[in-house]
Amino acid sequence: MSEQLVQRILGELESLALIDPHTHINPHAAASTTLADIMGYHYYTELAHSAGLPREQIEEPGLDPKEKVGRLVTKLDDLENTVQVSWLLEMCREFFGFDGDAITPDNWESVYDAAAAKMAEPDWEQQVLRQSKLEKVFLTNDFDDPLTGFDTSLYIPCLRTDDLVFHFAKRETRERLAKSSGTEVTTAASLRSAIGVLFEHFTRNGARACAISLPPDFSPAAVDDATVEPVLQAVLSGRELTRDEAVTLSQFNFWTLAGFCAEFKLPFDLMIGVNRRVYEDGVFQGQDLFDQRVSLIQYGKLFNAFPQVTFPISVLAQTSNQELVSYAWIFPNVVTNGHWWYSNIPAYIEQDCRSRLQAVPKTKQVGYYSDMYKLEFALPKFGMYRRILAKVLAEDFVIDRGWNEERAVELGTLNLRGNVERVFNI
Amino acid sequence: MSEQLVQRILGELESLALIDPHTHINPHAAASTTLADIMGYHYYTELAHSAGLPREQIEEPGLDPKEKVGRLVTKLDDLENTVQVSWLLEMCREFFGFDGDAITPDNWESVYDAAAAKMAEPDWEQQVLRQSKLEKVFLTNDFDDPLTGFDTSLYIPCLRTDDLVFHFAKRETRERLAKSSGTEVTTAASLRSAIGVLFEHFTRNGARACAISLPPDFSPAAVDDATVEPVLQAVLSGRELTRDEAVTLSQFNFWTLAGFCAEFKLPFDLMIGVNRRVYEDGVFQGQDLFDQRVSLIQYGKLFNAFPQVTFPISVLAQTSNQELVSYAWIFPNVVTNGHWWYSNIPAYIEQDCRSRLQAVPKTKQVGYYSDMYKLEFALPKFGMYRRILAKVLAEDFVIDRGWNEERAVELGTLNLRGNVERVFNI
Amino acid sequence: MSEQLVQRILGELESLALIDPHTHINPHAAASTTLADIMGYHYYTELAHSAGLPREQIEEPGLDPKEKVGRLVTKLDDLENTVQVSWLLEMCREFFGFDGDAITPDNWESVYDAAAAKMAEPDWEQQVLRQSKLEKVFLTNDFDDPLTGFDTSLYIPCLRTDDLVFHFAKRETRERLAKSSGTEVTTAASLRSAIGVLFEHFTRNGARACAISLPPDFSPAAVDDATVEPVLQAVLSGRELTRDEAVTLSQFNFWTLAGFCAEFKLPFDLMIGVNRRVYEDGVFQGQDLFDQRVSLIQYGKLFNAFPQVTFPISVLAQTSNQELVSYAWIFPNVVTNGHWWYSNIPAYIEQDCRSRLQAVPKTKQVGYYSDMYKLEFALPKFGMYRRILAKVLAEDFVIDRGWNEERAVELGTLNLRGNVERVFNI
Repeated sequence: MSEQLVQRILGELESLALIDPHTHINPHAAASTTLADIMGYHYYTELAHSAGLPREQIEEPGLDPKEKVGRLVTKLDDLENTVQVSWLLEMCREFFGFDGDAITPDNWESVYDAAAAKMAEPDWEQQVLRQSKLEKVFLTNDFDDPLTGFDTSLYIPCLRTDDLVFHFAKRETRERLAKSSGTEVTTAASLRSAIGVLFEHFTRNGARACAISLPPDFSPAAVDDATVEPVLQAVLSGRELTRDEAVTLSQFNFWTLAGFCAEFKLPFDLMIGVNRRVYEDGVFQGQDLFDQRVSLIQYGKLFNAFPQVTFPISVLAQTSNQELVSYAWIFPNVVTNGHWWYSNIPAYIEQDCRSRLQAVPKTKQVGYYSDMYKLEFALPKFGMYRRILAKVLAEDFVIDRGWNEERAVELGTLNLRGNVERVFNI
Repeated sequence: MSEQLVQRILGELESLALIDPHTHINPHAAASTTLADIMGYHYYTELAHSAGLPREQIEEPGLDPKEKVGRLVTKLDDLENTVQVSWLLEMCREFFGFDGDAITPDNWESVYDAAAAKMAEPDWEQQVLRQSKLEKVFLTNDFDDPLTGFDTSLYIPCLRTDDLVFHFAKRETRERLAKSSGTEVTTAASLRSAIGVLFEHFTRNGARACAISLPPDFSPAAVDDATVEPVLQAVLSGRELTRDEAVTLSQFNFWTLAGFCAEFKLPFDLMIGVNRRVYEDGVFQGQDLFDQRVSLIQYGKLFNAFPQVTFPISVLAQTSNQELVSYAWIFPNVVTNGHWWYSNIPAYIEQDCRSRLQAVPKTKQVGYYSDMYKLEFALPKFGMYRRILAKVLAEDFVIDRGWNEERAVELGTLNLRGNVERVFNI
Repeated sequence: MSEQLVQRILGELESLALIDPHTHINPHAAASTTLADIMGYHYYTELAHSAGLPREQIEEPGLDPKEKVGRLVTKLDDLENTVQVSWLLEMCREFFGFDGDAITPDNWESVYDAAAAKMAEPDWEQQVLRQSKLEKVFLTNDFDDPLTGFDTSLYIPCLRTDDLVFHFAKRETRERLAKSSGTEVTTAASLRSAIGVLFEHFTRNGARACAISLPPDFSPAAVDDATVEPVLQAVLSGRELTRDEAVTLSQFNFWTLAGFCAEFKLPFDLMIGVNRRVYEDGVFQGQDLFDQRVSLIQYGKLFNAFPQVTFPISVLAQTSNQELVSYAWIFPNVVTNGHWWYSNIPAYIEQDCRSRLQAVPKTKQVGYYSDMYKLEFALPKFGMYRRILAKVLAEDFVIDRGWNEERAVELGTLNLRGNVERVFNI
């Protein structure tokens, strides 16, 4: 009976049209053209590499897409247990009519060809959106993205700011900023102006969020112009910064971004906890890891200083989830946001979803985002989340608290969809 | 069948009379007089504030209790998912005959009035104690509490020492100490004497514990008189302490307390991990959070130095629970104590209860305390814990290990009640 | 039906012959001779001590084995809830025909005598191996172990290196190294040579792993000869090292070991996170605890520098498990290894097993090792793990993902047995 209850709730949740509040979709090529676009996702390349496939074979220059898939398939058996491979199978079943238990060296070519045929249909992108019930999809845009040539009411711009905060000392970043803002940065004031131009550009083009990923050792702090000015001049003169100077500059830029989020009424997505390039010989996008020794107390000053900015927060370490629950329970401007990366597996999602639903106001929880690079991934990823959400709603609310099913479904609907609209002002 | 098993075990646990080993009850006004006493609990004010209710509306000076409840009720729908609101509903059902699914802007006044009528009955406090099966209730007394005017065999004094350890540099604290101890602190020796007077006063009045809450960065250490003396003189001269000096003074006072716990045979409740005033604009008692980067190894010297003192330990971060399990498994004087604050939600209680029952001697576990400010909260809070405990006993002991139910109930009884008597010498 | 499914999978897993990849078995006295050998295991002595039995009673010099058991039995009731006592009961039932619910002051003597009789049978060791389905058992050998007098194809040597890395400054360690390697250490080069001789000795005698346990604050780093040379000379001259010098020496020796693991193609078992002698008055082997504030990022340089070395990794803190999952998901040379010590209880094993199976390539997971000191412990410890593994396979793979049972059993077989052969080249 409990299993039927879960299925009924799940059925309701599956009928919802979705807004995916964080992806890496390229709006000019949103859907895949071959299975290599799907299996080239770093989740597969890095797992195949971890299981023994040399990077050189995966990333050989000029490698034919079909050949690439063929090479990755040799490792799929070693990965069959992973939830990531379960997503692959679900995509192949739902989109391409695959009906086997596994993609193997014996059957992969027919899957590849079936996928290629489907993907070649002129409305493939629309088919995927429709079949996945995707209504809107948030992007991750470089700060100098022109935001042209696509429908920004379908693909919603999001201003990604890692480069500004952590790579401003690179000449390339500064040149990109000068070009995109039309402002030459010579002082703290002109730096602020240049960033302001970006916010104008993005919000004029329908952006609904500013976003950044942050290393575990970063602690935001207010830095005044007089303090950052000599550091900025050092950067402009080409001198390499000390560690302390680099921190000062990062803090100044980060705090400036938060200020513009307040001014432009944009939520500021914080994705906390990633160390970049830990595995230097890893495959593309498969080099980053984390240090669980991080605390949201590092963000205490920020949350206090910007009460008018909403901070949807993702944490990389599952051990950070209780802090996230507690900070969202206390701070009006802290919102829980999805299940990120290494925490995006059922064992952790279930625990985290459960604790959030037990202790954070229901209006302050963005249940899930796909983080996808290609549209096809929304279907299995949201599918995974919905099944877990349905289970938690059934067990914790209908069974343990005696809620009726309708009320549980309403809570799930808010979690999956309503809060995305509310938090991101859609 | 498993569900019936849980219910049978639960039925037995529900028949137990309880001793609540940690609360913030005011023995002169233990029960509520209006629903505002209940909904004014920081769990509701902070959650309502987190969901968007301005602090000024919650804490308006001179606000009428009924009006305050009316304002908080506007946010209850946003909080309906939280376990804290489930406690509220359970109180209203069990004590005031409420039979709805939610307290809403439409029905709250009748609940308020029904509560007010019940609370006005002359024996309301006794009714609550009886209905909640509360036999004794531990208090949290300021060190200068006269401990008069209440029945100390029902409301058991507990010497709370945060002010002595962390606010001794405040003139007010020293004046309170001088007044309550009859001892003017001029030297380390007289400081120790003054504290000793407090222990005499408290134990003479039936105190059964000394208690303190501790920030994540505190590490107890022995400090000799010669080291603390110049710091103490600085305090007395009105000079502001350096960070290092403040730590020295806190360590001296803490270690002194531990010494008196040994001398007076009092358990020393340590509540480890809270950072105060993280959210400075939060509501009253809704400003504190934590940093999960804390370890019980910081207390290693203490546990070694005072083998004759029992340390019932609560941890704020759920990520500290495994350390607590392990330290209680190894150190004879470490006892697990309840599920504190941000860890006091079912998702975390179940995991923590399960791991403790699997690895800590059964005699060294104080299952639960309510931490309540008003008596009415014991019923739903202990109710929540008992349901989880019954589930763990059924699954892990009766089903997985083949224990008979009687034996499982005995284990639960020890956990809920017997160990409170044993650990606190009642 | 789900329960029957678990039982069917469990039945298949129970039919497997095991290789236990980490134990502390003494191959010259692998099985117990009295129940004191079993109850003298630190899990029982430390828990009994934690529950109040004085160390002096447990470790009284010249104490008769039977008397020792009698004393420990007085505390068994206080420990009856622990999983460790459930192991004891399972051993007594399976090996000695005990059929009670508890070992008590009333019945323990008959258990003791029954055990003694069984253990006195000349083929007791073989009986235990057979009944436990143990095919091979890894040892933990001191670096100067002659490795003679036992069957190294049954009891597989493993070079344990804690002393070399963390106690090289002790004269005794250096003397043992000089004697066992035939090399007098006078320089960094001769130190390296001496360690090389150990690797030759161990691999010639069938060693299949190098192993070490590491404190939470250790971070491996390459140290060149010129840097370590003055430190080494200080050690040789008898001068006490500074903290920094000691770290340099430890890092040099550790890195040297990793280099030889590469040269000799030995996996390097890292057991990360233990603080030694935290409880100084604890019983033998019952003094160690941990600090959860540790990260695998401390090992990032190591994993990058030695891609050809496999690192089977155990973590002591359960909060480290997600990092382990993630690092094994990314680094080809990182393998998850068992459930160590304070994490070796069902509540944590289940979570950790589940997350590993969801996100780490199936070929990179060594499911379990017993860590036992006496052969009899493999049966209940592997039994505990198999029951959890069967449950996770049933729930996550057969039910949630629709795998057939055969495939789930194959995954379990790889986890329990196949990967031990693969990872350790057996």
